[in-house]
Amino acid sequence: MDTNIKQRVQDSFACQPVLATIGATLTRVRSGEVTIELPIRSDLTQQHGFVHAGIVTLVADTACGYAALTLMPPLAAVLSVEFKVNFLSPATGEKLIARGWVIKPGKTIMVCQGEIHARNGGEDKLVAIILATMITREDVGLVG
Amino acid sequence: MDTNIKQRVQDSFACQPVLATIGATLTRVRSGEVTIELPIRSDLTQQHGFVHAGIVTLVADTACGYAALTLMPPLAAVLSVEFKVNFLSPATGEKLIARGWVIKPGKTIMVCQGEIHARNGGEDKLVAIILATMITREDVGLVG
Amino acid sequence: MDTNIKQRVQDSFACQPVLATIGATLTRVRSGEVTIELPIRSDLTQQHGFVHAGIVTLVADTACGYAALTLMPPLAAVLSVEFKVNFLSPATGEKLIARGWVIKPGKTIMVCQGEIHARNGGEDKLVAIILATMITREDVGLVG
Amino acid sequence: MDTNIKQRVQDSFACQPVLATIGATLTRVRSGEVTIELPIRSDLTQQHGFVHAGIVTLVADTACGYAALTLMPPLAAVLSVEFKVNFLSPATGEKLIARGWVIKPGKTIMVCQGEIHARNGGEDKLVAIILATMITREDVGLVG
Repeated sequence: MDTNIKQRVQDSFACQPVLATIGATLTRVRSGEVTIELPIRSDLTQQHGFVHAGIVTLVADTACGYAALTLMPPLAAVLSVEFKVNFLSPATGEKLIARGWVIKPGKTIMVCQGEIHARNGGEDKLVAIILATMITREDVGLVG
Repeated sequence: MDTNIKQRVQDSFACQPVLATIGATLTRVRSGEVTIELPIRSDLTQQHGFVHAGIVTLVADTACGYAALTLMPPLAAVLSVEFKVNFLSPATGEKLIARGWVIKPGKTIMVCQGEIHARNGGEDKLVAIILATMITREDVGLVG
Repeated sequence: MDTNIKQRVQDSFACQPVLATIGATLTRVRSGEVTIELPIRSDLTQQHGFVHAGIVTLVADTACGYAALTLMPPLAAVLSVEFKVNFLSPATGEKLIARGWVIKPGKTIMVCQGEIHARNGGEDKLVAIILATMITREDVGLVG
Repeated sequence: MDTNIKQRVQDSFACQPVLATIGATLTRVRSGEVTIELPIRSDLTQQHGFVHAGIVTLVADTACGYAALTLMPPLAAVLSVEFKVNFLSPATGEKLIARGWVIKPGKTIMVCQGEIHARNGGEDKLVAIILATMITREDVGLVG
């Protein structure tokens, strides 16, 4: 992966207002794999004090989408066609760590998987797993 | 559905900090069906100016979860086991309207479906569809 | 829908050996919607005497795929990108009736939904629901 | 894992008529992980000569279900609540090898993942990936 791709992911990440709203940060970009972290804040929780499933999904989907983007041509953009998420443990602790990677790269479709862990006192617990289908949109890239 | 159930959904909704954070409101509660609305704000968007798939999912999942709750016993709580969401059109316009309903009620498992429309100039467009599996946790209700 | 499309679905259906193996029949083809029936046989069941989830899925996926095909150009073919199926009741009785329809047609991607009912003594019970993503492959059509 | 569990999986496998119908065999049983093989036959294929997505799903679901069963108490039975499958490559070659494993064991719910490879001339290619939710039914076990 050339450094341009890393820069491209960072630039795109910075252009997503919702990621600033929830306080997500991009912590690693490799070819076909991206990690995002989210410090857990009480304003992101549901009624039992856990991070809401939708917020867990947001960071998981974003990690998968950028993992796909690292394998795409320069002017392409990525859109989520669909995803499925299974929730395994309550999302609680200090921060969420969402890692997404490409299982199957394709010219049009990229299938990605991701795991979201919650870090609590130095220990990581698997919170959710995502299986996502991404689509390349080169034309979107031209205007995005 | 008795009025207690409607009240129970409203009370639970008010206890979810993330719903206030994104500005979601509960607009309808019926037996087995709940509607939530989300005024579209720029701080909830991704890089193309559309509401992020994770936020669309958040309101969809919440509508499904509360639809399930309307069919549960008084002290029960509902958790998302998993869901799948397909994204059909960009989430753009004035507000999102997420309607969730129970397809198959069960003692332990409730299967729900939901549709999320974007309203733009008086016209509604289908943005996403969700198929979700919810689980009843009566013990959670005792402490939640 | 012109009659050519109906003929095209019938021809393709007849070219799938597995559909003859399990005894599935094509019972209705409309624009964007297809129905398939499967007489329940004991050699298609699992250990509790119900039709196996994989066989239920097979007819559901096939109904969705052909629903998508009805909206595609003449030489196109359809492939399943992915699907999710929820199982709601045991698949038991005289026959399964799988109806698939297109929720969102697209040039490349078609999102479909389907319901599978089991008919038992004149009564239909919802057995499963499918949400599927199909992709158009015009080039496959040229050789298919 | 005690040998009783292996025996229990073998006995249950032998009681599923559909597995004999398609010619699937149980090739490995470990604690939380099961492998099933399916020699590819032309009567299991769709119109392009590949094994039908429904048959791929059948073996994938079965591998996941038995993986869950290995972690359950003696008289329990397992049912598929739902699954999602992504199809990555055509299922063609000599045989399919479906491996399922438990990601998250639970008292009621078990979340499983699986990979299905196609072996062709000594080479294995990833054909599909499954993410499944299984439920324990102890009462079913008493009569199953």
